Amino acid sequence: MTSDDLILGIDFGGTKVALGLSDRTGALLATRRLDTDAEAGAEQVVARALSAAAQLVSGSRLAAIGVVSPGIVLPDRILLAPNVPGWEKLHLAELVSAAFPAVPVAVGTDAKAAALAEWTWGTLAGADPAVFLSLGTGIAAAVLVGGRLLTGANGAAGEIGYNLRTPQDADGFASGAAPLEEAVGGRWLGTRATALLGRPVTAGELFALARENTEAKELVASALDELSMHVANLAIAFDPSRIAVGGGLVRSADVLLPALRERLAAAVPFPPELVPARFDQDASLLGAVALALRE
Amino acid sequence: MTSDDLILGIDFGGTKVALGLSDRTGALLATRRLDTDAEAGAEQVVARALSAAAQLVSGSRLAAIGVVSPGIVLPDRILLAPNVPGWEKLHLAELVSAAFPAVPVAVGTDAKAAALAEWTWGTLAGADPAVFLSLGTGIAAAVLVGGRLLTGANGAAGEIGYNLRTPQDADGFASGAAPLEEAVGGRWLGTRATALLGRPVTAGELFALARENTEAKELVASALDELSMHVANLAIAFDPSRIAVGGGLVRSADVLLPALRERLAAAVPFPPELVPARFDQDASLLGAVALALRE
Repeated sequence: MTSDDLILGIDFGGTKVALGLSDRTGALLATRRLDTDAEAGAEQVVARALSAAAQLVSGSRLAAIGVVSPGIVLPDRILLAPNVPGWEKLHLAELVSAAFPAVPVAVGTDAKAAALAEWTWGTLAGADPAVFLSLGTGIAAAVLVGGRLLTGANGAAGEIGYNLRTPQDADGFASGAAPLEEAVGGRWLGTRATALLGRPVTAGELFALARENTEAKELVASALDELSMHVANLAIAFDPSRIAVGGGLVRSADVLLPALRERLAAAVPFPPELVPARFDQDASLLGAVALALRE
Repeated sequence: MTSDDLILGIDFGGTKVALGLSDRTGALLATRRLDTDAEAGAEQVVARALSAAAQLVSGSRLAAIGVVSPGIVLPDRILLAPNVPGWEKLHLAELVSAAFPAVPVAVGTDAKAAALAEWTWGTLAGADPAVFLSLGTGIAAAVLVGGRLLTGANGAAGEIGYNLRTPQDADGFASGAAPLEEAVGGRWLGTRATALLGRPVTAGELFALARENTEAKELVASALDELSMHVANLAIAFDPSRIAVGGGLVRSADVLLPALRERLAAAVPFPPELVPARFDQDASLLGAVALALRE
């Protein structure tokens, strides 16, 4: 590709779709956001995204396209992605290729792609092993060793939202549960906070309230105890040099990061650095771009 | 090396030292075992082992030497290896090189080397990622991706004996604890069984007793619930295609393996195969040989 060729990134999320045109340094030259409108199903959102992408691209020469989504994106289906009806049956790479013939298309998992963006342009540069923690509605990790993403045998490495929480846990992936995510993921924290405080509260508001409200403080403390145990055990397993934390919960970094650091220091033989990720809203979108550049 | 050059392997354990002369296919041509006599300190056991090694080797041409030990073997010290007084200050590679000048010496961690032996000649052949679980006095894991051992940034990847067990665990590595190992490691299981049953019982005997004795059965069940949760979470993190279980506890494979398999099936998105390791007593010794051949 020549230096003025552009990369199209598309990040399909459960509530938003982000599109971006980037140069090869990861600088976003133009972006666009759409609502996923998940309840209306998978096909309409892909069609709207591709139509918006065509407008965004108009006239530019595309070198490559990267597309990311929650779940494991295979040629004829997407696994572990329950949020959008019909999403699991999508032939995502094929649909994108049909809209942009002759442009190479790379597809991948959003959290893993975000890790790649942090390693390429962000706070994981030079870290080996490098761990990216995505703490938002979903809870996931992605690990790079020698700059290469660990995908696992089935693309499912790092899907720690499914982690068991206690020796007695009878429910797990096989029964449709994601035990850790259901305890400390953003959506579930919001639901528990709403029940506790008797009014609608998001996870972000819960963290803010925890500064003054005792009940909120206890709920946050218990969630952080739980989460930090799993982050510590993950660090014991991989012995990373650095962990970058991204996802919506990192907006409460003043509470979140010290709790995680304290646990790492207590439990891990060689406690890794823990830093906020460089990219916030655009992490997965830049991940899509990084993925396209890597292929 | 020519095909008739031999490899010397030395496996320093907390209670035994194993020495072996092997050809390059991992066939052990001669072996020797010594007591570690841990209380007498590190220097005497290394001196006795090297003397026994010289006798074993006498006349043969050595192509390489592999030496393994619990802990992280660095040029001027050994980390995370608390069992033998003075072990942490050993210059192990240097001492071996002084005894066998001009022969290349590779050093490494016993469980990681055992994983390499299973990958090279045993039940992990072709697995990617491949996980080796060492369940004995110590509890550790070792992972190979693309046939390469994941060491981590400090050689401590997979040291899951330090895993936290509950969100409330205040003690961990920093306070000298190894929470998971102290709950389900062979030594601690024996201690708990001895206390429970009022007479000296080893972990192996405990598993045998659990077939008829209710108290023993409950202790084993609770240990397996605990252990299997951590094995499941490890499998979620790495998404391996196969896990091989080695170490002393695997002699109770009839109880151990079904419990682990059941948990993997319930909790892991893509449950890996779980198999007993090929090598039992000689796993780490063959690991030393595999390590020497790999360098």
